[in-house]
Amino acid sequence: MRNKISVSILGGSGYAGGELLRILLQHPNVEVSQVTSRKFEGQFVTVVHPNLRKRTSLSFIGPEKLERCDLLFVALPNGESMNQVMQLINKAKKIIDLGADFRLHNKSIFEEWYKQQHISPHLLTKFVYGICELHRSEIKKSRFVACAGCEATVSILALYPLIKHNLIESKIIIDAKMSSSQAGVSPTLSSHHPERAGAVRSYMPTGHRHAAEIIQELSINGFIPDIAISATAIDMVRGLLVTCHVSPKRNITEKNIWSSYREVYRNEPFIRIVKEKRGLYRYPEPKILQGTNYCDIGFEMDSRSNRLVIIAAIDNLVKGTAGQAVQAMNVMYGYEEITALEFTGLHPI
Amino acid sequence: MRNKISVSILGGSGYAGGELLRILLQHPNVEVSQVTSRKFEGQFVTVVHPNLRKRTSLSFIGPEKLERCDLLFVALPNGESMNQVMQLINKAKKIIDLGADFRLHNKSIFEEWYKQQHISPHLLTKFVYGICELHRSEIKKSRFVACAGCEATVSILALYPLIKHNLIESKIIIDAKMSSSQAGVSPTLSSHHPERAGAVRSYMPTGHRHAAEIIQELSINGFIPDIAISATAIDMVRGLLVTCHVSPKRNITEKNIWSSYREVYRNEPFIRIVKEKRGLYRYPEPKILQGTNYCDIGFEMDSRSNRLVIIAAIDNLVKGTAGQAVQAMNVMYGYEEITALEFTGLHPI
Amino acid sequence: MRNKISVSILGGSGYAGGELLRILLQHPNVEVSQVTSRKFEGQFVTVVHPNLRKRTSLSFIGPEKLERCDLLFVALPNGESMNQVMQLINKAKKIIDLGADFRLHNKSIFEEWYKQQHISPHLLTKFVYGICELHRSEIKKSRFVACAGCEATVSILALYPLIKHNLIESKIIIDAKMSSSQAGVSPTLSSHHPERAGAVRSYMPTGHRHAAEIIQELSINGFIPDIAISATAIDMVRGLLVTCHVSPKRNITEKNIWSSYREVYRNEPFIRIVKEKRGLYRYPEPKILQGTNYCDIGFEMDSRSNRLVIIAAIDNLVKGTAGQAVQAMNVMYGYEEITALEFTGLHPI
Amino acid sequence: MRNKISVSILGGSGYAGGELLRILLQHPNVEVSQVTSRKFEGQFVTVVHPNLRKRTSLSFIGPEKLERCDLLFVALPNGESMNQVMQLINKAKKIIDLGADFRLHNKSIFEEWYKQQHISPHLLTKFVYGICELHRSEIKKSRFVACAGCEATVSILALYPLIKHNLIESKIIIDAKMSSSQAGVSPTLSSHHPERAGAVRSYMPTGHRHAAEIIQELSINGFIPDIAISATAIDMVRGLLVTCHVSPKRNITEKNIWSSYREVYRNEPFIRIVKEKRGLYRYPEPKILQGTNYCDIGFEMDSRSNRLVIIAAIDNLVKGTAGQAVQAMNVMYGYEEITALEFTGLHPI
Repeated sequence: MRNKISVSILGGSGYAGGELLRILLQHPNVEVSQVTSRKFEGQFVTVVHPNLRKRTSLSFIGPEKLERCDLLFVALPNGESMNQVMQLINKAKKIIDLGADFRLHNKSIFEEWYKQQHISPHLLTKFVYGICELHRSEIKKSRFVACAGCEATVSILALYPLIKHNLIESKIIIDAKMSSSQAGVSPTLSSHHPERAGAVRSYMPTGHRHAAEIIQELSINGFIPDIAISATAIDMVRGLLVTCHVSPKRNITEKNIWSSYREVYRNEPFIRIVKEKRGLYRYPEPKILQGTNYCDIGFEMDSRSNRLVIIAAIDNLVKGTAGQAVQAMNVMYGYEEITALEFTGLHPI
Repeated sequence: MRNKISVSILGGSGYAGGELLRILLQHPNVEVSQVTSRKFEGQFVTVVHPNLRKRTSLSFIGPEKLERCDLLFVALPNGESMNQVMQLINKAKKIIDLGADFRLHNKSIFEEWYKQQHISPHLLTKFVYGICELHRSEIKKSRFVACAGCEATVSILALYPLIKHNLIESKIIIDAKMSSSQAGVSPTLSSHHPERAGAVRSYMPTGHRHAAEIIQELSINGFIPDIAISATAIDMVRGLLVTCHVSPKRNITEKNIWSSYREVYRNEPFIRIVKEKRGLYRYPEPKILQGTNYCDIGFEMDSRSNRLVIIAAIDNLVKGTAGQAVQAMNVMYGYEEITALEFTGLHPI
Repeated sequence: MRNKISVSILGGSGYAGGELLRILLQHPNVEVSQVTSRKFEGQFVTVVHPNLRKRTSLSFIGPEKLERCDLLFVALPNGESMNQVMQLINKAKKIIDLGADFRLHNKSIFEEWYKQQHISPHLLTKFVYGICELHRSEIKKSRFVACAGCEATVSILALYPLIKHNLIESKIIIDAKMSSSQAGVSPTLSSHHPERAGAVRSYMPTGHRHAAEIIQELSINGFIPDIAISATAIDMVRGLLVTCHVSPKRNITEKNIWSSYREVYRNEPFIRIVKEKRGLYRYPEPKILQGTNYCDIGFEMDSRSNRLVIIAAIDNLVKGTAGQAVQAMNVMYGYEEITALEFTGLHPI
Repeated sequence: MRNKISVSILGGSGYAGGELLRILLQHPNVEVSQVTSRKFEGQFVTVVHPNLRKRTSLSFIGPEKLERCDLLFVALPNGESMNQVMQLINKAKKIIDLGADFRLHNKSIFEEWYKQQHISPHLLTKFVYGICELHRSEIKKSRFVACAGCEATVSILALYPLIKHNLIESKIIIDAKMSSSQAGVSPTLSSHHPERAGAVRSYMPTGHRHAAEIIQELSINGFIPDIAISATAIDMVRGLLVTCHVSPKRNITEKNIWSSYREVYRNEPFIRIVKEKRGLYRYPEPKILQGTNYCDIGFEMDSRSNRLVIIAAIDNLVKGTAGQAVQAMNVMYGYEEITALEFTGLHPI
């Protein structure tokens, strides 16, 4: 098994951990060494991730049994990785954190949005924000990566070229349609099927914390976006779509929008601009992205109002979490960026 | 059968017609005389509306067999009622039209949005717009009522008190989550289950025609709203939720918003302000409104952005169509306004 | 408020309790006095049952505050009503129990299937099994009624006329398609939306406890049915469909089947035989029964195998639970049997 | 591009054709040459199969432009391939037919079940039935393969070891839970979302034509199965689950069942026996099989009735159609059998 790096997953029984495992098990340059779970210690990972049956005979280990590895993926609940990070950096040469603790570079902004003190603030600037499309060269050189929140990922990718090219005003409204897997693996009344099925639930009309990341990443050349998110949970397990309502600057045309996306994303393997004249799938649609690492982006100018509508979709567990992490790993280790992330998506589904 | 009015339905095989029939069959003051359908002439209405089994033995008649009645409900595809209206006014003392042809009072605005010539423009000002909460006294006296579009109904009811009390700026973004019954009874590739199930389809990011009605109804005291709708179809058969993003005027508080709703809707039997601190259903939710004539309205101030989010939900086939029509009928004939519209809604569902 | 009986609900925060409340609030002969919930004591019932907003200002009371009433509905978890029943019979003139404790008349059969001792076995024969279609005259005279399990209700109603007329062999396979509300209001991993949505889960391939009730009720004139249930949970919140595979006796024709249903159910207000040559809804379909008290029954002879397929559907929370209970109440008190149970069902939904 | 075979798809705009394309585009030994569609001639395949964006620049060609190729996949509506087959055998060295025309070896049986005359009966015995698990060695040598129907595939795989080992009686009841993609790509009222969503539709209580294939394949050593299928359409786009109710022979234990499956399927890459004591996915579940070529099989003995319940699930478009076809191709050409069929499936989904 030459040339394989040893990789472990801290917190492998959740949805992000399971998705990481699914992707890493098919990666030709990776050996998955250990997967931890306090709750399922000693049980086969397939008890929790039944799709991996016949693919792996790994069992969960207790987190205290974690051994040294080349790369450690941390998939812990928010607030835990900042507690453990000082021990973890002795365990692994590189760390990719999928949680929220190291996404924001500024301690006080973190504390304002997350309403808790940051335990390891000196590391905040050591972590690179994990979206390769924006930070590829830094990720390549970094030891620590903090993957973006799923809602932030799709919003940033949708808006970045427009802001880079100075095409829109600062007031940005993001109307997000969310799926149930985003809330994680723990059952609550809110996720109880009779309540959650068929729901169109305005669970966070204002105040979504991913706004902080979006503001951080889209504050470019003095532009400071005013990000207002409204999040509505719909009857979907996996997937995320944002409808961004923005005001184009004076005289901006659809052609300018096209050019900005083309200029920034021309060579990106995982970005597709979807704006079709025919067919059913004229705009981005999360259902056909399930299992893929794509971010599909489309847009339409409102000919009556001074408004530009940008639509973008991802699989929250792949491009929004585990796929993004593996993409960053591929960049960090110089593997081809699409390795293990080539799944096409299904249609119909 | 004293005191019953004779009522007929022109175009009874669609979803609006079926819903009308369901409601009217339980109305103590109504005798349903005839229900027309060209396609299903001679067949029992229960072949098309199987929920009405054991409730009615009516069969569809061909439209040319329509006889005189007290009240005629017209549930034809857009563009047809303006063709037939001159004959219909000889058939019925009163007419309630569920289509789009007579909602707009201005011929040129109709033609601009609907891209067709209006055949009976002289009647445009004879029809009263059918939302009782705004036009109760005119509906009481009128012979002709044009029911509002479902998307317009919920948006107008959500915004009217705020505009009446001068609380918001004119730029209004309406992000609508739509169900499949809104597209009617005819199968298309777009409504084909493998394509439509699980969809989060941006089928109309801009340009929704209901904007015209909303502008007409919310242009009050010189205020002219700038209405921008984005419509996303989600995996829902029945129901409609709008998330309205507006800018409150300076110094407006949540208390002012509360007061405006209370002042306008205090005595309305079908409006509920839903803004709870606990429970799962803290904001309006269309799934528990199925079959009801309620319009639930909630709101939240965005403490970071200068934004007010208003959320409103209805059953598009009831308050958005057939229930609205029966409510108008009740007002026209002096019946108690809630008659036959008392269904509570189900939970869980 | 002349002629109204006072009714209370013990255990009113679950789905059965909520459905009872919905139905009873519109019953002209009933005054809902008290609704208990230990967990939600002091809170409005509408916090838990949001569909009842604007219909009731009742709050939950603690169970120890239950006062005397005419009729008590008991909607407690299985195993609890047999514990409390001796106190409850002092509180209410009549009791209708929605749980499993008093459905079986035989102590040892109860203990065999429920794997627990029965605390109040002397009352087992005092309770009448609550299906009015089979036990109307006994229910009329009884003080205690035990409503049938939902799966038992639909299976018994589907099979009873065939057995009464001696048309089928004893081996009966019931393939049941179940909804999530049947599992109650408590969230578990099994009901967690990401796991439960889209599921086709063989959660009980054999061993379903409702078999005991079905055997009890269908053991007629020496016939002892061999009931084998397989239960599959599908992505449905409310509703229940059984596909019963049975062997007709020699020379039995579809006409004989028709006759047996007609003879037994001719005057039943809530039974519909659904077997159509055209339309989409040729056989029973639970989705259009949501909220109704109907049991729809259809059948088809297999021309190649010696098999008769019987299909039956109900709303598990109405005809399968709360509606059945109110129907029994109507019979007990001599009210018109359909009172408060007249909802038609929605289409489309 | 050494060593690649040229492959074309006749009838590439349907769901089977799209799924074939998805799988073949990632096959290292295959060059997809042409994909036909009369309706979409000249348009990019991605207009119809949007999941393939950025993966292929192929356009549909008219069927008359089909050129010679090594292997032709035929994905035409039932009844068409028998019409065209004589011309097609001049176009391609090998043919894999995904339709029903050449599955049955006996002309009169075909005509009895399909109610039409067979045009090319002399070829019926030239086609090998395409389930590799039963016919691997014949497929290896054959020029013509007829893939099994999806419902037949899962039923045959579930039952074959039991019959081979003489463990069950001949009377077999198959209760199938079906998805909407099985009905193909053409919209009808039956597939119209408002009607099809949430449905539990007994669309074929008896008479399913796949019974003929199942009887053919399971008639072993004088055993003639009596196959009775009931098919219920549920709210699922992709996937198929069968619950088979059979009678075990005297003294058969769960251990015998285990052994028979192990003996027959020990080395099969796509069969998994799923019968777990813990976890949520204790039995086969189609939702986690979406996109995979697995057939998962489980079982449970009924301790009260003399009944064995076998549960099996597949993705109808993969193992039930396109994946099965590619598996057969891999066998025919000596490629590793799992090539291009390695997708794991997603969880949650």
